[in-house]
Amino acid sequence: MEKITSNQNNRVKEWKKLQAKKGRTKSGEYIIEGWHIVGEAIRHQKEILALMVTDEDFLDQLEFDDTKVPVYLITPEIANHISSTETPQGVFAVLKTEDYHESIPDNLTGAWLLLDNIQDPGNIGTMVRTADAAGVSGVVFGRGTADIYNPKVVRAMQGSQFHMQLFSGDLLDWLAALKKQQVPTYGTELNDQAVSYTDVTPTQTFGLVMGNEGNGVSPEILSWTDQNLYIPMKGEAESLNVAVATGILLFHLFK
Amino acid sequence: MEKITSNQNNRVKEWKKLQAKKGRTKSGEYIIEGWHIVGEAIRHQKEILALMVTDEDFLDQLEFDDTKVPVYLITPEIANHISSTETPQGVFAVLKTEDYHESIPDNLTGAWLLLDNIQDPGNIGTMVRTADAAGVSGVVFGRGTADIYNPKVVRAMQGSQFHMQLFSGDLLDWLAALKKQQVPTYGTELNDQAVSYTDVTPTQTFGLVMGNEGNGVSPEILSWTDQNLYIPMKGEAESLNVAVATGILLFHLFK
Repeated sequence: MEKITSNQNNRVKEWKKLQAKKGRTKSGEYIIEGWHIVGEAIRHQKEILALMVTDEDFLDQLEFDDTKVPVYLITPEIANHISSTETPQGVFAVLKTEDYHESIPDNLTGAWLLLDNIQDPGNIGTMVRTADAAGVSGVVFGRGTADIYNPKVVRAMQGSQFHMQLFSGDLLDWLAALKKQQVPTYGTELNDQAVSYTDVTPTQTFGLVMGNEGNGVSPEILSWTDQNLYIPMKGEAESLNVAVATGILLFHLFK
Repeated sequence: MEKITSNQNNRVKEWKKLQAKKGRTKSGEYIIEGWHIVGEAIRHQKEILALMVTDEDFLDQLEFDDTKVPVYLITPEIANHISSTETPQGVFAVLKTEDYHESIPDNLTGAWLLLDNIQDPGNIGTMVRTADAAGVSGVVFGRGTADIYNPKVVRAMQGSQFHMQLFSGDLLDWLAALKKQQVPTYGTELNDQAVSYTDVTPTQTFGLVMGNEGNGVSPEILSWTDQNLYIPMKGEAESLNVAVATGILLFHLFK
């Protein structure tokens, strides 16, 4: 186990760079932090390129193969430096980024969550985690949706990237494929044709498109969906957070 | 209209201080930003102590009483300096903080959301916004729940603090009061006695306790609730974000 005590150490500089997309793209690596997520990575047998702890005793609580994983003992100052949170737990790991699945599966049974230009990293991560909890088959990142290895996305996903398939693609191609297999697709835009989600009978196969926080689902994509859902609101708030709306819809729609 | 061009200006320094609890407590003021929230403050006739814009033309889009509201034209640099977001919209206002309601209402008809030691400001704000959308009567902040005027809470609330009653109090007192009026109360802890929320018949009057992100509802508070609910998860995620769970539960339970 190597001890590192300076922020000027070359490895620390490399880890720090993983906070930015440029650094992740160049190295093909990303950083995870916190007991739960690092534990999930180990449990799912992800290749761990580096494991960093602020306390040697922490290693006893992580069941990893110490013949394969390079371990570094770092100072709390370094932990603060490479962390994306204000109160780091002192446990970090570096993983390889995995490419999104690009091709649409032949069999589209199950629920599919399609993200149209979602902007906020916390929202994206929370939506993936919510989709995972609901048991959807996959999440599709449409154009404009932020990078999944952004530290804020990674934190909000809570390890869900290890459980489920994440796709990148043109949502129009996906909607065409779903239509071809007669899978019902739902948009989420409050307009004249919209029906309350409570009026939709839960099913085991469907596609749900969630749109941009400010602008909603783009009109072209919306025109390809079968039905447009809205969530009736009794209070004065004009809208719901997009991840909360995703939870309400997925947990109702999915049988 | 006064023009301000330097971050060293005394007013700018005062606005900057409102990002911290200390500054808010001392002045009794807090800062809001963005078109939607500032618009909501005006629409709800909140007393606006200062209105700051980066572009004079922005004022045409805000219907405020310019004989009463002091307006400041600020530079984009100042906007970045006083903003809590990375991409400020260039519209800010300073409002008076309002005390929470401290006493429990005599009539507890309606839905009540009780927050037990929720930590993350974004979660707190999103829960208030979600409760507002669902049409609950009030949100109660129990001990340990973070300050509502924290900029991240304010941003996530999206103006819901103008629509609904926010209480501060001991949740045990609240649960006793709800019990006395025979209002059903629900805890949210996965244990042997927990029932699926889908088995609960929606009603118009109830109290729902949501617990700390890591530790859940505290045992003492849980012992005072009538029933303990869980959200069945088909996927591999071990839990849901607390604001998403709040949305799923409130939109199902509230008739």
